[in-house]
Amino acid sequence: MLVHVTLSPTERSTVRRGSHRARTDRDALHRLLDDALICHLGVVVDGAPRVLPTCFGRHGDTLYLHGSTGARSLREAPRTQVCATVTHLDGIVYARSLMHHSVNYRSAVVHGEARQVTDEDERLLALRVISEQLAPGSWQHARQPDRRELAKTAVLALDLTEAAVKVRATGPNDDPEDVSAGTAWAGVLPLRTAWGDPEPSPDLSPPLPVPPHVRDRKRPE
Amino acid sequence: MLVHVTLSPTERSTVRRGSHRARTDRDALHRLLDDALICHLGVVVDGAPRVLPTCFGRHGDTLYLHGSTGARSLREAPRTQVCATVTHLDGIVYARSLMHHSVNYRSAVVHGEARQVTDEDERLLALRVISEQLAPGSWQHARQPDRRELAKTAVLALDLTEAAVKVRATGPNDDPEDVSAGTAWAGVLPLRTAWGDPEPSPDLSPPLPVPPHVRDRKRPE
Repeated sequence: MLVHVTLSPTERSTVRRGSHRARTDRDALHRLLDDALICHLGVVVDGAPRVLPTCFGRHGDTLYLHGSTGARSLREAPRTQVCATVTHLDGIVYARSLMHHSVNYRSAVVHGEARQVTDEDERLLALRVISEQLAPGSWQHARQPDRRELAKTAVLALDLTEAAVKVRATGPNDDPEDVSAGTAWAGVLPLRTAWGDPEPSPDLSPPLPVPPHVRDRKRPE
Repeated sequence: MLVHVTLSPTERSTVRRGSHRARTDRDALHRLLDDALICHLGVVVDGAPRVLPTCFGRHGDTLYLHGSTGARSLREAPRTQVCATVTHLDGIVYARSLMHHSVNYRSAVVHGEARQVTDEDERLLALRVISEQLAPGSWQHARQPDRRELAKTAVLALDLTEAAVKVRATGPNDDPEDVSAGTAWAGVLPLRTAWGDPEPSPDLSPPLPVPPHVRDRKRPE
Protein backbone atom coordinates (compact mmCIF):
# COMPACT_ATOMS: atom_id res chain seq x y z
CA MET A 1 0.00 0.00 0.00
CA LEU A 2 1.58 3.23 -1.18
CA VAL A 3 -0.73 6.16 -1.07
CA HIS A 4 -0.83 9.89 -0.90
CA VAL A 5 -3.62 12.34 -0.58
CA THR A 6 -3.72 15.92 -1.51
CA LEU A 7 -6.85 17.46 -0.08
CA SER A 8 -6.56 20.79 -1.83
CA PRO A 9 -4.93 21.72 -5.05
CA THR A 10 -2.51 24.40 -3.91
CA GLU A 11 1.10 24.15 -4.97
CA ARG A 12 2.54 23.46 -1.54
CA SER A 13 0.00 20.82 -0.51
CA THR A 14 0.47 18.89 -3.73
CA VAL A 15 2.67 15.93 -3.01
CA ARG A 16 5.40 15.65 -5.60
CA ARG A 17 8.01 13.30 -4.17
CA GLY A 18 6.49 9.82 -4.14
CA SER A 19 3.12 11.02 -5.34
CA HIS A 20 1.96 7.40 -5.46
CA ARG A 21 1.83 7.71 -1.67
CA ALA A 22 -0.88 10.40 -1.66
CA ARG A 23 -4.42 9.84 -0.41
CA THR A 24 -7.36 11.94 -1.33
CA ASP A 25 -10.08 11.29 1.16
CA ARG A 26 -10.79 13.48 4.11
CA ASP A 27 -11.59 10.53 6.41
CA ALA A 28 -7.99 9.38 6.12
CA LEU A 29 -6.81 12.82 7.24
CA HIS A 30 -9.20 12.91 10.19
CA ARG A 31 -8.27 9.38 11.31
CA LEU A 32 -4.57 10.10 11.04
CA LEU A 33 -4.89 13.29 13.11
CA ASP A 34 -7.20 11.71 15.68
CA ASP A 35 -4.77 8.83 16.23
CA ALA A 36 -1.92 11.20 17.08
CA LEU A 37 -0.85 12.54 20.46
CA ILE A 38 1.26 15.48 19.29
CA CYS A 39 1.99 17.46 16.16
CA HIS A 40 5.03 19.48 15.14
CA LEU A 41 4.07 23.10 14.62
CA GLY A 42 6.18 25.24 12.30
CA VAL A 43 6.12 29.03 12.47
CA VAL A 44 8.41 31.65 10.98
CA VAL A 45 10.12 33.89 13.54
CA ASP A 46 12.45 36.63 12.29
CA GLY A 47 12.48 34.96 8.88
CA ALA A 48 13.63 31.58 10.19
CA PRO A 49 11.58 28.44 10.76
CA ARG A 50 10.85 27.27 14.30
CA VAL A 51 9.46 23.76 14.81
CA LEU A 52 8.04 22.79 18.19
CA PRO A 53 6.15 19.71 19.38
CA THR A 54 2.73 20.48 20.78
CA CYS A 55 -0.59 18.91 21.68
CA PHE A 56 -3.62 19.56 19.52
CA GLY A 57 -7.22 18.56 18.94
CA ARG A 58 -9.57 18.36 15.99
CA HIS A 59 -13.21 19.35 15.61
CA GLY A 60 -14.69 18.87 12.15
CA ASP A 61 -12.27 20.46 9.73
CA THR A 62 -10.54 22.63 12.31
CA LEU A 63 -7.34 21.80 14.13
CA TYR A 64 -6.98 23.51 17.51
CA LEU A 65 -3.75 24.36 19.33
CA HIS A 66 -3.27 25.99 22.68
CA GLY A 67 -0.47 27.33 24.79
CA SER A 68 0.53 29.97 27.23
CA THR A 69 -0.22 33.52 26.16
CA GLY A 70 3.48 34.16 26.83
CA ALA A 71 4.85 31.64 24.29
CA ARG A 72 6.46 33.44 21.39
CA SER A 73 5.65 30.72 18.84
CA LEU A 74 1.96 31.22 19.64
CA ARG A 75 2.20 35.00 19.71
CA GLU A 76 3.74 34.95 16.23
CA ALA A 77 1.30 32.46 14.79
CA PRO A 78 -2.03 34.33 14.34
CA ARG A 79 -2.49 35.93 10.94
CA THR A 80 0.69 34.32 9.67
CA GLN A 81 1.22 31.07 7.81
CA VAL A 82 1.85 28.04 9.97
CA CYS A 83 2.39 24.37 9.22
CA ALA A 84 1.26 21.54 11.49
CA THR A 85 2.66 18.09 10.79
CA VAL A 86 1.65 14.78 12.33
CA THR A 87 3.73 11.67 11.76
CA HIS A 88 3.12 8.09 12.80
CA LEU A 89 6.21 5.93 12.36
CA ASP A 90 5.10 2.34 11.72
CA GLY A 91 8.27 0.48 10.86
CA ILE A 92 11.71 0.35 9.33
CA VAL A 93 11.99 -0.97 5.78
CA TYR A 94 15.17 -3.00 5.23
CA ALA A 95 16.01 -3.29 1.55
CA ARG A 96 18.76 -5.18 -0.31
CA SER A 97 20.36 -1.83 -1.09
CA LEU A 98 21.05 1.01 1.32
CA MET A 99 19.38 3.63 -0.84
CA HIS A 100 16.08 1.71 -0.84
CA HIS A 101 15.99 1.54 2.93
CA SER A 102 12.95 3.47 4.07
CA VAL A 103 10.33 3.81 6.77
CA ASN A 104 6.68 2.92 6.84
CA TYR A 105 4.73 5.88 8.12
CA ARG A 106 1.55 7.92 7.96
CA SER A 107 1.90 11.68 7.86
CA ALA A 108 -0.36 14.68 7.51
CA VAL A 109 0.92 18.16 6.68
CA VAL A 110 -1.52 21.02 7.19
CA HIS A 111 -0.78 24.51 5.88
CA GLY A 112 -2.73 27.62 6.64
CA GLU A 113 -3.13 30.89 8.41
CA ALA A 114 -3.72 30.41 12.11
CA ARG A 115 -6.67 32.22 13.63
CA GLN A 116 -6.63 33.38 17.24
CA VAL A 117 -9.80 32.07 18.88
CA THR A 118 -11.47 34.73 21.03
CA ASP A 119 -15.06 33.53 21.33
CA GLU A 120 -15.35 31.97 24.80
CA ASP A 121 -17.58 29.10 23.65
CA GLU A 122 -15.21 28.17 20.87
CA ARG A 123 -12.23 28.47 23.24
CA LEU A 124 -13.86 26.00 25.63
CA LEU A 125 -14.73 23.67 22.75
CA ALA A 126 -11.11 23.84 21.58
CA LEU A 127 -9.73 23.09 25.04
CA ARG A 128 -12.14 20.18 25.35
CA VAL A 129 -11.11 18.59 22.04
CA ILE A 130 -7.41 19.15 22.79
CA SER A 131 -7.93 17.56 26.21
CA GLU A 132 -9.90 14.63 24.79
CA GLN A 133 -7.20 13.97 22.21
CA LEU A 134 -4.44 13.96 24.83
CA ALA A 135 -6.35 12.24 27.61
CA PRO A 136 -9.78 10.91 26.62
CA GLY A 137 -12.15 10.96 29.58
CA SER A 138 -10.22 13.55 31.55
CA TRP A 139 -12.56 16.41 30.62
CA GLN A 140 -15.27 14.72 32.72
CA HIS A 141 -12.96 13.40 35.42
CA ALA A 142 -10.63 16.29 36.22
CA ARG A 143 -11.27 19.89 37.25
CA GLN A 144 -12.15 22.03 34.25
CA PRO A 145 -10.33 25.30 33.56
CA ASP A 146 -11.31 28.28 35.70
CA ARG A 147 -11.41 31.91 34.65
CA ARG A 148 -7.84 32.64 35.75
CA GLU A 149 -6.48 29.66 33.80
CA LEU A 150 -8.49 30.57 30.72
CA ALA A 151 -7.09 34.10 30.78
CA LYS A 152 -3.54 32.73 30.57
CA THR A 153 -4.33 30.40 27.66
CA ALA A 154 -4.08 31.27 23.99
CA VAL A 155 -6.08 29.17 21.53
CA LEU A 156 -5.37 28.98 17.82
CA ALA A 157 -7.46 27.45 15.05
CA LEU A 158 -6.10 26.08 11.79
CA ASP A 159 -8.39 25.15 8.94
CA LEU A 160 -7.81 21.68 7.47
CA THR A 161 -8.59 22.79 3.91
CA GLU A 162 -5.00 22.74 2.74
CA ALA A 163 -3.60 19.40 3.81
CA ALA A 164 -1.63 16.52 2.38
CA VAL A 165 -1.64 12.95 3.65
CA LYS A 166 1.16 10.56 2.84
CA VAL A 167 1.24 6.87 3.73
CA ARG A 168 3.89 4.23 3.16
CA ALA A 169 2.83 0.79 4.31
CA THR A 170 4.58 -1.82 2.24
CA GLY A 171 7.76 -3.83 1.91
CA PRO A 172 11.03 -2.85 0.28
CA ASN A 173 11.06 -1.61 -3.28
CA ASP A 174 14.39 -3.02 -4.47
CA ASP A 175 15.93 -2.94 -7.91
CA PRO A 176 15.42 -6.26 -9.78
CA GLU A 177 19.20 -6.90 -9.89
CA ASP A 178 19.40 -6.70 -6.11
CA VAL A 179 16.40 -9.00 -5.68
CA SER A 180 17.91 -11.65 -7.93
CA ALA A 181 21.38 -11.27 -6.40
CA GLY A 182 19.79 -12.50 -3.16
CA THR A 183 22.72 -11.40 -1.03
CA ALA A 184 20.90 -9.33 1.57
CA TRP A 185 17.84 -9.77 3.78
CA ALA A 186 14.85 -7.57 3.06
CA GLY A 187 11.67 -6.93 4.95
CA VAL A 188 9.99 -4.71 7.50
CA LEU A 189 10.67 -4.35 11.20
CA PRO A 190 7.36 -3.00 12.59
CA LEU A 191 7.40 -0.38 15.31
CA ARG A 192 4.67 -0.63 17.94
CA THR A 193 3.61 1.73 20.68
CA ALA A 194 1.78 0.69 23.82
CA TRP A 195 0.88 2.09 27.21
CA GLY A 196 2.91 1.01 30.19
CA ASP A 197 1.39 0.47 33.63
CA PRO A 198 -0.14 3.66 35.08
CA GLU A 199 2.10 5.30 37.69
CA PRO A 200 -0.10 6.97 40.32
CA SER A 201 1.15 10.23 41.76
CA PRO A 202 2.70 9.55 45.20
CA ASP A 203 0.67 12.39 46.74
CA LEU A 204 -2.72 10.86 45.88
CA SER A 205 -4.75 11.18 49.04
CA PRO A 206 -6.99 9.29 49.47
CA PRO A 207 -5.27 6.67 47.25
CA LEU A 208 -7.82 6.59 44.42
CA PRO A 209 -7.88 3.54 42.12
CA VAL A 210 -6.77 4.06 38.53
CA PRO A 211 -9.96 5.22 36.75
CA PRO A 212 -11.23 3.27 33.70
CA HIS A 213 -10.40 6.07 31.21
CA VAL A 214 -6.74 5.66 32.15
CA ARG A 215 -6.65 1.92 32.94
CA ASP A 216 -8.44 0.87 29.74
CA ARG A 217 -7.06 3.50 27.40
CA LYS A 218 -6.99 2.28 23.81
CA ARG A 219 -3.54 1.44 22.50
CA PRO A 220 -2.08 4.31 20.42
CA GLU A 221 -2.19 3.61 16.67
CA MET B 1 13.06 15.62 36.83
CA LEU B 2 12.32 18.80 34.94
CA VAL B 3 15.19 20.02 32.89
CA HIS B 4 16.10 22.13 29.94
CA VAL B 5 19.30 22.78 28.18
CA THR B 6 20.28 25.62 26.04
CA LEU B 7 23.50 24.80 24.29
CA SER B 8 24.13 28.20 22.83
CA PRO B 9 23.10 31.59 24.03
CA THR B 10 21.22 32.91 21.01
CA GLU B 11 17.79 34.36 21.50
CA ARG B 12 15.87 31.64 19.67
CA SER B 13 17.65 28.69 21.27
CA THR B 14 17.10 30.06 24.76
CA VAL B 15 14.24 28.20 26.32
CA ARG B 16 11.81 30.60 27.91
CA ARG B 17 8.62 28.66 28.50
CA GLY B 18 9.31 26.15 31.25
CA SER B 19 12.97 27.08 31.48
CA HIS B 20 13.28 24.72 34.46
CA ARG B 21 13.10 21.99 31.81
CA ALA B 22 16.32 23.01 30.04
CA ARG B 23 19.50 20.94 30.03
CA THR B 24 22.90 22.27 29.30
CA ASP B 25 25.16 19.37 28.51
CA ARG B 26 26.01 18.31 25.03
CA ASP B 27 25.90 14.59 25.87
CA ALA B 28 22.19 14.89 26.56
CA LEU B 29 21.70 16.42 23.11
CA HIS B 30 23.72 13.69 21.40
CA ARG B 31 21.92 10.90 23.27
CA LEU B 32 18.53 12.35 22.51
CA LEU B 33 19.32 12.66 18.79
CA ASP B 34 20.95 9.23 18.59
CA ASP B 35 17.90 7.57 20.15
CA ALA B 36 15.57 9.02 17.52
CA LEU B 37 14.48 7.50 14.22
CA ILE B 38 13.19 10.65 12.52
CA CYS B 39 13.25 14.40 12.95
CA HIS B 40 10.86 17.09 11.75
CA LEU B 41 12.65 19.49 9.43
CA GLY B 42 11.32 23.01 9.06
CA VAL B 43 12.19 25.20 6.10
CA VAL B 44 10.71 28.44 4.82
CA VAL B 45 9.28 28.24 1.30
CA ASP B 46 7.74 31.37 -0.22
CA GLY B 47 7.69 32.96 3.22
CA ALA B 48 5.70 30.14 4.83
CA PRO B 49 6.94 27.34 7.05
CA ARG B 50 7.02 23.77 5.77
CA VAL B 51 7.56 20.92 8.24
CA LEU B 52 8.36 17.44 6.96
CA PRO B 53 9.39 14.25 8.73
CA THR B 54 12.73 12.89 7.61
CA CYS B 55 15.50 10.51 8.58
CA PHE B 56 18.82 11.89 9.78
CA GLY B 57 22.14 10.94 11.29
CA ARG B 58 24.69 12.54 13.59
CA HIS B 59 28.46 12.63 13.44
CA GLY B 60 30.15 14.65 16.18
CA ASP B 61 28.42 17.98 16.28
CA THR B 62 26.94 17.73 12.79
CA LEU B 63 23.47 16.54 11.93
CA TYR B 64 23.15 15.10 8.42
CA LEU B 65 20.03 14.93 6.27
CA HIS B 66 19.56 13.49 2.83
CA GLY B 67 16.93 13.33 0.16
CA SER B 68 16.28 13.34 -3.50
CA THR B 69 17.91 16.15 -5.44
CA GLY B 70 14.39 16.83 -6.75
CA ALA B 71 12.78 17.53 -3.36
CA ARG B 72 11.90 21.19 -3.03
CA SER B 73 12.35 21.30 0.75
CA LEU B 74 15.95 20.18 0.26
CA ARG B 75 16.55 22.49 -2.68
CA GLU B 76 15.40 25.43 -0.57
CA ALA B 77 17.38 24.46 2.49
CA PRO B 78 21.05 25.20 1.71
CA ARG B 79 22.20 28.67 2.73
CA THR B 80 18.88 29.36 4.43
CA GLN B 81 17.86 28.91 8.04
CA VAL B 82 16.36 25.54 8.90
CA CYS B 83 15.12 23.98 12.11
CA ALA B 84 15.36 20.28 12.91
CA THR B 85 13.31 19.02 15.84
CA VAL B 86 13.41 15.60 17.48
CA THR B 87 10.75 14.60 19.98
CA HIS B 88 10.44 11.48 22.11
CA LEU B 89 7.02 11.18 23.71
CA ASP B 90 7.38 9.23 26.96
CA GLY B 91 3.98 9.43 28.59
CA ILE B 92 0.77 11.29 29.32
CA VAL B 93 0.59 13.23 32.57
CA TYR B 94 -2.88 13.10 34.14
CA ALA B 95 -3.39 15.90 36.63
CA ARG B 96 -6.29 16.75 38.98
CA SER B 97 -7.02 19.75 36.77
CA LEU B 98 -7.30 19.81 32.99
CA MET B 99 -4.89 22.68 32.57
CA HIS B 100 -2.11 20.80 34.37
CA HIS B 101 -2.45 17.79 32.09
CA SER B 102 0.81 17.45 30.19
CA VAL B 103 3.14 15.03 28.47
CA ASN B 104 6.48 13.63 29.48
CA TYR B 105 8.89 14.04 26.62
CA ARG B 106 12.45 14.71 25.50
CA SER B 107 12.95 17.15 22.66
CA ALA B 108 15.83 18.75 20.84
CA VAL B 109 15.43 21.78 18.61
CA VAL B 110 18.38 22.62 16.35
CA HIS B 111 18.56 25.90 14.46
CA GLY B 112 21.06 26.81 11.82
CA GLU B 113 22.00 27.38 8.24
CA ALA B 114 22.05 24.15 6.30
CA ARG B 115 25.17 23.44 4.27
CA GLN B 116 25.02 21.42 1.05
CA VAL B 117 27.63 18.68 1.32
CA THR B 118 29.61 18.31 -1.89
CA ASP B 119 32.80 16.56 -0.80
CA GLU B 120 32.39 12.90 -1.81
CA ASP B 121 34.03 11.52 1.35
CA GLU B 122 31.80 13.60 3.58
CA ARG B 123 28.74 12.64 1.53
CA LEU B 124 29.54 8.95 2.04
CA LEU B 125 30.16 9.53 5.74
CA ALA B 126 26.79 11.31 5.98
CA LEU B 127 24.95 8.52 4.19
CA ARG B 128 26.60 5.98 6.47
CA VAL B 129 25.60 7.75 9.68
CA ILE B 130 22.06 8.33 8.39
CA SER B 131 21.86 4.64 7.45
CA GLU B 132 23.27 3.51 10.80
CA GLN B 133 20.78 5.65 12.67
CA LEU B 134 17.82 4.26 10.72
CA ALA B 135 19.02 0.68 10.43
CA PRO B 136 22.15 -0.13 12.44
CA GLY B 137 24.15 -2.88 10.74
CA SER B 138 22.65 -2.37 7.31
CA TRP B 139 25.63 -0.42 5.99
CA GLN B 140 27.67 -3.64 6.20
CA HIS B 141 24.87 -6.01 5.23
CA ALA B 142 23.17 -4.33 2.27
CA ARG B 143 24.48 -3.06 -1.05
CA GLN B 144 26.12 0.34 -0.67
CA PRO B 145 25.13 3.27 -2.91
CA ASP B 146 26.51 3.27 -6.43
CA ARG B 147 27.54 6.27 -8.50
CA ARG B 148 24.11 6.67 -10.12
CA GLU B 149 22.33 6.61 -6.77
CA LEU B 150 24.82 9.06 -5.26
CA ALA B 151 24.21 11.50 -8.13
CA LYS B 152 20.50 11.59 -7.31
CA THR B 153 21.05 12.20 -3.60
CA ALA B 154 21.37 15.57 -1.94
CA VAL B 155 23.11 15.70 1.44
CA LEU B 156 22.76 18.56 3.89
CA ALA B 157 24.74 19.28 7.05
CA LEU B 158 23.47 21.22 10.04
CA ASP B 159 25.75 22.31 12.81
CA LEU B 160 24.59 21.43 16.33
CA THR B 161 25.95 24.64 17.85
CA GLU B 162 22.59 26.28 18.27
CA ALA B 163 20.39 23.74 19.97
CA ALA B 164 18.00 23.49 22.88
CA VAL B 165 17.09 20.34 24.77
CA LYS B 166 13.93 20.12 26.83
CA VAL B 167 12.95 17.21 29.04
CA ARG B 168 9.85 16.62 31.15
CA ALA B 169 9.99 13.38 33.12
CA THR B 170 7.94 13.76 36.25
CA GLY B 171 4.45 13.49 37.67
CA PRO B 172 1.67 16.05 37.63
CA ASN B 173 2.26 19.51 38.97
CA ASP B 174 -1.15 20.27 40.46
CA ASP B 175 -2.26 23.28 42.45
CA PRO B 176 -2.29 22.56 46.22
CA GLU B 177 -6.08 23.09 46.40
CA ASP B 178 -6.64 20.37 43.80
CA VAL B 179 -4.28 17.98 45.58
CA SER B 180 -6.08 18.40 48.90
CA ALA B 181 -9.53 18.22 47.26
CA GLY B 182 -8.59 14.67 46.26
CA THR B 183 -11.43 14.37 43.76
CA ALA B 184 -9.48 13.26 40.69
CA TRP B 185 -6.83 10.64 39.95
CA ALA B 186 -3.37 11.89 39.04
CA GLY B 187 -0.35 10.13 37.67
CA VAL B 188 1.52 9.20 34.52
CA LEU B 189 0.56 6.74 31.81
CA PRO B 190 3.90 5.79 30.23
CA LEU B 191 4.17 5.33 26.50
CA ARG B 192 6.48 2.57 25.28
CA THR B 193 7.76 1.70 21.84
CA ALA B 194 8.98 -1.73 20.81
CA TRP B 195 9.81 -3.63 17.66
CA GLY B 196 7.28 -6.12 16.35
CA ASP B 197 8.30 -9.39 14.70
CA PRO B 198 10.34 -8.88 11.52
CA GLU B 199 8.25 -9.37 8.37
CA PRO B 200 10.48 -10.84 5.63
CA SER B 201 9.84 -9.66 2.11
CA PRO B 202 7.82 -12.36 0.24
CA ASP B 203 10.25 -12.24 -2.69
CA LEU B 204 13.31 -13.25 -0.62
CA SER B 205 15.00 -15.90 -2.66
CA PRO B 206 16.72 -17.87 -1.29
CA PRO B 207 14.71 -17.39 1.95
CA LEU B 208 17.45 -15.86 4.11
CA PRO B 209 17.09 -16.00 7.89
CA VAL B 210 16.49 -12.70 9.69
CA PRO B 211 20.02 -11.37 10.29
CA PRO B 212 21.12 -10.51 13.85
CA HIS B 213 21.21 -6.73 13.25
CA VAL B 214 17.47 -6.89 12.56
CA ARG B 215 16.48 -9.74 14.89
CA ASP B 216 18.32 -8.36 17.93
CA ARG B 217 17.81 -4.67 17.28
CA LYS B 218 17.83 -2.67 20.51
CA ARG B 219 14.43 -1.42 21.63
CA PRO B 220 13.87 2.21 20.63
CA GLU B 221 14.22 4.61 23.60
